[in-house]
Amino acid sequence: MELTGQSFLGSRRGAAHATSFHAVNPQTGEALAPAYHPASLAEVDAAVQLASQAFASFSQTSGRQRAAFLRRAADGITARQQELAERAHLETALPMPRLLGEAGRTANQLRLFAALVEEGSWVQARIDPPLPDRQPIPRPDIRSMLRPLGPVAVFGASNFPLAFSVAGGDTASAFAAGCPVLVKAHPAHPGTSEIVADILTQAAAAEGLHPGVFTMLFDSGIDVGSALVRHPLVRAVAFTGSLRGGRALMDLAAARPDPIPCFAEMSSGNPVFILPSALRRDPSQLAASLFGSFTLGAGQQCTKPGIVLVAGAPGDQAFLDALRSLVQSAAPATLLTADIAHTYARTTEARALDIPLAAASPAPQAASTCLAQTKIFTVCLEEFLGKPHLEDEIFGPNTLLVHCGEPGDFLRAAHSLEGHLTATILGDDEDLAAHRELIQLLERKAGRLIFNGVPTGVDVGHAMVHGGPYPSTSDSRFTSVGSLAIYRFARPVCFQNCPQALLPPELQDTNPLGIARLIDGKPEKLTA
Amino acid sequence: MELTGQSFLGSRRGAAHATSFHAVNPQTGEALAPAYHPASLAEVDAAVQLASQAFASFSQTSGRQRAAFLRRAADGITARQQELAERAHLETALPMPRLLGEAGRTANQLRLFAALVEEGSWVQARIDPPLPDRQPIPRPDIRSMLRPLGPVAVFGASNFPLAFSVAGGDTASAFAAGCPVLVKAHPAHPGTSEIVADILTQAAAAEGLHPGVFTMLFDSGIDVGSALVRHPLVRAVAFTGSLRGGRALMDLAAARPDPIPCFAEMSSGNPVFILPSALRRDPSQLAASLFGSFTLGAGQQCTKPGIVLVAGAPGDQAFLDALRSLVQSAAPATLLTADIAHTYARTTEARALDIPLAAASPAPQAASTCLAQTKIFTVCLEEFLGKPHLEDEIFGPNTLLVHCGEPGDFLRAAHSLEGHLTATILGDDEDLAAHRELIQLLERKAGRLIFNGVPTGVDVGHAMVHGGPYPSTSDSRFTSVGSLAIYRFARPVCFQNCPQALLPPELQDTNPLGIARLIDGKPEKLTA
Repeated sequence: MELTGQSFLGSRRGAAHATSFHAVNPQTGEALAPAYHPASLAEVDAAVQLASQAFASFSQTSGRQRAAFLRRAADGITARQQELAERAHLETALPMPRLLGEAGRTANQLRLFAALVEEGSWVQARIDPPLPDRQPIPRPDIRSMLRPLGPVAVFGASNFPLAFSVAGGDTASAFAAGCPVLVKAHPAHPGTSEIVADILTQAAAAEGLHPGVFTMLFDSGIDVGSALVRHPLVRAVAFTGSLRGGRALMDLAAARPDPIPCFAEMSSGNPVFILPSALRRDPSQLAASLFGSFTLGAGQQCTKPGIVLVAGAPGDQAFLDALRSLVQSAAPATLLTADIAHTYARTTEARALDIPLAAASPAPQAASTCLAQTKIFTVCLEEFLGKPHLEDEIFGPNTLLVHCGEPGDFLRAAHSLEGHLTATILGDDEDLAAHRELIQLLERKAGRLIFNGVPTGVDVGHAMVHGGPYPSTSDSRFTSVGSLAIYRFARPVCFQNCPQALLPPELQDTNPLGIARLIDGKPEKLTA
Repeated sequence: MELTGQSFLGSRRGAAHATSFHAVNPQTGEALAPAYHPASLAEVDAAVQLASQAFASFSQTSGRQRAAFLRRAADGITARQQELAERAHLETALPMPRLLGEAGRTANQLRLFAALVEEGSWVQARIDPPLPDRQPIPRPDIRSMLRPLGPVAVFGASNFPLAFSVAGGDTASAFAAGCPVLVKAHPAHPGTSEIVADILTQAAAAEGLHPGVFTMLFDSGIDVGSALVRHPLVRAVAFTGSLRGGRALMDLAAARPDPIPCFAEMSSGNPVFILPSALRRDPSQLAASLFGSFTLGAGQQCTKPGIVLVAGAPGDQAFLDALRSLVQSAAPATLLTADIAHTYARTTEARALDIPLAAASPAPQAASTCLAQTKIFTVCLEEFLGKPHLEDEIFGPNTLLVHCGEPGDFLRAAHSLEGHLTATILGDDEDLAAHRELIQLLERKAGRLIFNGVPTGVDVGHAMVHGGPYPSTSDSRFTSVGSLAIYRFARPVCFQNCPQALLPPELQDTNPLGIARLIDGKPEKLTA
């Protein structure tokens, strides 16, 4: 399609203002056409008004109707995955196979939510039947189910231009719940965003939905995003990005006259605990696996292992040597933007003045300002505990090895940790069983515990949790990946003594949708 | 028991400081012995440290163990209900039958959560089995379930000295989830709080739990509460009370270096829509029912109907006349505290200067500073819409009648509303069916829709929702009453490729607890 650089305001497009910005090819530094026009504050307001109007009808659609919309969007992404991956490759320098895979994941994510809401049990329907003879007072007829919150502002992430962006998990789960979505497109991949927005707009039109169900606004700064989060008609916020950006949105959402939920997935060191038995098994295989994980996507994954706690045990030197050698022969990585690359260079150089740099890949020769060196640092546990800033995530291809020489060091390290998306433990069954207290402690520090694997790779299913205690996310009670993500955007509503004809089908006596429900707290028996 | 006025710090009691405060009998104005000693900030810290230590073991207890604890607490309340009601009557002036009923409700609430966690399915266990042959990448073994957040600070409410206080719904649901509880006792009923704290402390000891599972701190000001919400080891807050108090805690929780969830149930006008058919049926019965509801508990219920929107239709004058006559013959109400009574007098007098006072009960003759007049105000819709402050709750026995004379007035009124705990619609089936758009709109404004009833009376069951959009609560996605209240204090934790022996029983292959689980998103078939 021909890109125009204008925001999406339902069935019309935003104005082409005088000011504009361009995407930049990280591999060449060249600006990419077209010019992108930041939405005006009047356009932000128009978009939110549209979304709020759309909510009246969209909140009343059936799960089947929303499933059709989600599947049409998924089909659109699949049909245009080559076009999407090509543009995304220009804008992010992520490899084509990865981007084609991400397109597939994005489409599958939309289909997962389609299946979820088509089946319908996600609404957690509950019926407490009336007890007219109960003493001391009768019980009325009480029924409840989840209903959508209202318009949701979604902030696209830089590092997943498809799966955590315009039609990513936040958008898919908000749509599934019955919420209109207002996307603030990430300025690093506006062209990719524009193609996806075109797909979503067409899907909404083809399904006969109110055009305000989906809007998308461009901006290279913070004005549009701030205005969205402050707007009285916006009911929730979803964000994936930096701790600074996420915390700013959390603070804005909490400071509103009427605070709204803000789900921000922000920053995580994803600690990895290497027990002695894991070092014994195959130190160089372990090094290869870890190297692959912290350099995946140029180290720009939310689940990159940024802190590796290594037992002082036979094999630790072989492991370190193998890792060093992999790092020293690594090719230059291309980061997503010049800003990210600049920050990466600055923070890793500062860290090298603070603690020992154990290895680095050769300094890049090429001209691109987005190239980065792969680096690993080492530190002993005492120094790690004494310098809390070492827990801060450095976005890019690096990790920090923490040597844990004494018994009890793992527990001390785990106690000191803030919240993370994941925690990983490597060791054989016997070793793991001996570290039960460590495992129980890590459960309080992370949303996902991984045994004998790597943290990168977040499966989109029903049991996945991609969320953890602060600062990894704003609220550990929710996840942004997997079908549980829908619960961020829904609230229970209770109907007391409501006539059958006025009840949503989910709560009617005959259970016309055949969904799983709780009757008086017990699963309803369904007739076949 | 002999009351001592000292805080509860696990197995020991707080110090008897020089400063102290007393409960006051609202009927006589007399101070009640003993003197109560505000906890020091060092005691706050000691209590939180204890709670945090207790979390390590309490978070690992089985549902069955927590059920035994909750049932023992319930039995203690039942066994001492007369002692509790007598002290609560002295401290609150609420009638003895109501307080005995509230003791029963409090015990039943504890037993509801006991049954919930003993059965165990509340943890929402999910298993996505491994798919080693999946393309393009295999799926690991992924399992998740809900786990407790950590120590919870609970603020007792003034208006329910038992059911929303020390062992009320917040405490019961936090314990059920596996969270230690730190109660800030309400200064208006410290003696009642002390007896309940004694019951909970004994129950924890009898069940062999860590003494830090329950602590309780006295204070007549805001220092102890603020310190609790700010403490780094506190993981969540639950509050029932005023909008000003709740918002202050929300802001404190959101401003922490690591923001924590704060569930505050605050302020609600509980609008009632009286359709023409309801006026036709029996205007004086309708008046009696509404009068009973807004004067219940001296008008100090969270679900008191404070805004009544009346159709301009035959019967409206008879309804108003009947209501006036009930109000004019009402006996003086005794409010909970002199402060509440003073605020009530001041705000209702200010309202009477602003809009017409339709009726008032005789001015009280007695000396007690807690006596209050029952009052009703009337206003037309235009004036209601022009004065948004009329939606503010006035705690005490009063309500506001809004005359809706024109078609479309109900919709205009509903559009203007903020968030409320409840919305009530009165009318016959035909009339209700004609107001479907109104009902759909009210669903977005309230957590519970009541048909042909009154909002007071909140049943404690599985389908109840006692929560609504701001300002009625801080987060409409949760409820503070009913078994769903447990979800405020739990977060999902995911286990990837975890050895069976290290998995919680809820997630083991054999499902030893026999709970309901989702396998690949579908209900697991249980063998009998």
